Amino acid sequence: MNRGDHRTSETRLRVRYSETDAQRIVNNGVYLAYFEVGRVEWLRNAGFSYAELERDGYGFVVVKAEIEYGKPARFDDELTVRTTLLELRRASLSFAYKVLRGEELLVAGKTRHGCIDIASGRPVRIPAGLGGDRIFGAKDFHETKTR
Amino acid sequence: MNRGDHRTSETRLRVRYSETDAQRIVNNGVYLAYFEVGRVEWLRNAGFSYAELERDGYGFVVVKAEIEYGKPARFDDELTVRTTLLELRRASLSFAYKVLRGEELLVAGKTRHGCIDIASGRPVRIPAGLGGDRIFGAKDFHETKTR
Amino acid sequence: MNRGDHRTSETRLRVRYSETDAQRIVNNGVYLAYFEVGRVEWLRNAGFSYAELERDGYGFVVVKAEIEYGKPARFDDELTVRTTLLELRRASLSFAYKVLRGEELLVAGKTRHGCIDIASGRPVRIPAGLGGDRIFGAKDFHETKTR
Amino acid sequence: MNRGDHRTSETRLRVRYSETDAQRIVNNGVYLAYFEVGRVEWLRNAGFSYAELERDGYGFVVVKAEIEYGKPARFDDELTVRTTLLELRRASLSFAYKVLRGEELLVAGKTRHGCIDIASGRPVRIPAGLGGDRIFGAKDFHETKTR
Repeated sequence: MNRGDHRTSETRLRVRYSETDAQRIVNNGVYLAYFEVGRVEWLRNAGFSYAELERDGYGFVVVKAEIEYGKPARFDDELTVRTTLLELRRASLSFAYKVLRGEELLVAGKTRHGCIDIASGRPVRIPAGLGGDRIFGAKDFHETKTR
Repeated sequence: MNRGDHRTSETRLRVRYSETDAQRIVNNGVYLAYFEVGRVEWLRNAGFSYAELERDGYGFVVVKAEIEYGKPARFDDELTVRTTLLELRRASLSFAYKVLRGEELLVAGKTRHGCIDIASGRPVRIPAGLGGDRIFGAKDFHETKTR
Repeated sequence: MNRGDHRTSETRLRVRYSETDAQRIVNNGVYLAYFEVGRVEWLRNAGFSYAELERDGYGFVVVKAEIEYGKPARFDDELTVRTTLLELRRASLSFAYKVLRGEELLVAGKTRHGCIDIASGRPVRIPAGLGGDRIFGAKDFHETKTR
Repeated sequence: MNRGDHRTSETRLRVRYSETDAQRIVNNGVYLAYFEVGRVEWLRNAGFSYAELERDGYGFVVVKAEIEYGKPARFDDELTVRTTLLELRRASLSFAYKVLRGEELLVAGKTRHGCIDIASGRPVRIPAGLGGDRIFGAKDFHETKTR
């Protein structure tokens, strides 16, 4: 069983003119919006709508982000955002991202998120099934340490 | 009495690199963010914090915007956003904006807003005093027709 | 022959989290980025890549924009941007846009653009074929007045 | 002599409505724009205009960024971006950033940049005086290793 397949999803996007800057490349901050698109699509592939999670009272807050800029993307480039679940804990999770133009890696990054109860702002356990049953099976889930 | 003074406020900002696009000018959509800054400062000058208005349950929704682009602004330009209250009705209001570099007019625009009760999303009367007592006096307020 | 078909193109996009604001709706300025996506796709449908036009030395500068906000779009909504060429002159052109969620009209707008020679910044004749031969035929092109 | 003073500059900004997202906090990607503002002001304090550096043919490209999100900033918050030069090499430099609300640390980060010749896109030596003579003195400059 190729577990990697279950942990990775891909989404396509095309660079908008408004995303470029005066260096005629995609502005460095825009990749965090691309990553955001990537993880929303990852969740959808895993059977979760982030919009529904919010309506159910859950929110994911970004606690850390890292980005390595290899080569610039430019206006009208067709990009692939490859999103991989790196780690799933009781109340937090991490993703890795690769932004590719064809097979050429342009930018890579990671983000770490806490799961909160929107009403109180407090950390809460990630909804059942997100990483556990539906995606990796119970074993994977328990292999990760709770904090 | 120069009423114009009471209806107009100015705020300064400097063009950020992230606001430029590959034409090496400020992207056309960014001016709506500049206008937003202008009217938040106009409200503050008039004694209203938009953040507090929201906490009190009021929201202003944009219903119309017009922008005329004369000359481009560029990275690091120091701009003035001159915001003028155009019209104040029972549940809506309009602003005009001029974006200047020194005395040179670059971009002009208008926005029209409805005042809503955030909880219900329904139109509500604009909070007392916003345009009436504090700024223009009761007479001005009643001169404008309610819709 | 239904000329309307040739003048209109549609493109799909999904609202990103970063495009929403604290009113939990798409920020008013973001629609200008959506319009930009719409007209780049319109051009592509008409056989023109805006990226190539720029490499050939042509640029389109926005000279005017109007937006009417009917109903708000929200995070994760699937939207259609329907872009129509309104007018084509010697050195300028205008587009109309409708942003729809399913068949529900949310936001409408228009933009007007001048065609410039990027090197000099001066107005130049729109590249042959853009609206003329390929799309509307010579007759339409000549029906529009040059300014 | 407190060299730290020479390596750190502060700039103020107020959170714009367009910078918030549906979580009613500043969107995670916006901090990279704040960092960009911080380093442009750092350069200005050091006697360099980034706009002029570009006109002279120099560009700084972001090669790496890290962000730690402690507490969220919200609409209308008055923030301080404290920017510190971390390291200066022959053709690259690094900055650290703290985003504060009053004395409360909200977000911290680092960016690393390469200096390029804009025409060729190749790495070039950072303009004389940037970190050397004017700011830290020749000694500091030579203490850092060239790569």
